Amino acid sequence: MAGGDAPDGAAPGVWLARGVCRGLAARGYAVVTEMPLADGRRADVLGVDERGGVLIVEVKASRADFRADAKWDAYRAFCDRFAFAVPPEFPMDILPDEATCGVLVADGYDAQVLREPPEHKLAGARRRAVLLRFARTAARRLHRAIDPEAGVDDG
Amino acid sequence: MAGGDAPDGAAPGVWLARGVCRGLAARGYAVVTEMPLADGRRADVLGVDERGGVLIVEVKASRADFRADAKWDAYRAFCDRFAFAVPPEFPMDILPDEATCGVLVADGYDAQVLREPPEHKLAGARRRAVLLRFARTAARRLHRAIDPEAGVDDG
Repeated sequence: MAGGDAPDGAAPGVWLARGVCRGLAARGYAVVTEMPLADGRRADVLGVDERGGVLIVEVKASRADFRADAKWDAYRAFCDRFAFAVPPEFPMDILPDEATCGVLVADGYDAQVLREPPEHKLAGARRRAVLLRFARTAARRLHRAIDPEAGVDDG
Repeated sequence: MAGGDAPDGAAPGVWLARGVCRGLAARGYAVVTEMPLADGRRADVLGVDERGGVLIVEVKASRADFRADAKWDAYRAFCDRFAFAVPPEFPMDILPDEATCGVLVADGYDAQVLREPPEHKLAGARRRAVLLRFARTAARRLHRAIDPEAGVDDG
């Protein structure tokens, strides 16, 4: 099995997201997957660094996966940096240019930065709102995991 | 078994903290237990409401437990509101007065507000720091719970 291949039964996107989370954690980010945003979308992975910087990573397992979601630019309004994470065999030339997004190359075990995401800093009020939503989502999911009978709804 | 009694083998404080977390969640708080603060202490329970308000609750299972920790007032520097959570049989008259702290009466299943905690608002920079630490602690613990092999250290 190549590093980029998901084990039998695992969705490729979920498998790659696991590696993205590991790679970001190794770089000092705290991460949440399937992170709900104020506009109703969910970011595949949202990472917060130790200074409160916000990175969103969208995972694209294949060309078809990338083509199916043309609205990825909406995520940029909720982060300081945006990147795609793709498997090694992904056709890199179809990704937007370096002024727009970074690129991570991922498998289920790790992710490496192929191209650093450019910075476009969030305004203060938006940053506070994103961080508060991230904080409450992470804590509620953790609470559910620790005490499933607590009746906490999903974030 | 009375509602305030921990099941065999459970530490009374941990049992009460479970009920405190449930009670705060029902009131709209997202919670983290054993929350590390910038001064090296850990708050028993730190809750964040939907507007970013910060509540710290210290759990005191008995008179001896309360007497053993005289430095609870240091927690007030890291929250907007501070409360003690105690079991129903706790000697309430030994608690500080209503200008200082609120009181929750807890068992392992829930917690009720006996006395609302007074508000002493955090300054902006301190609030941002507390919320960021809470966010990253919750997310890292959740990540560890989801992917124990990710190598994420405890918060």
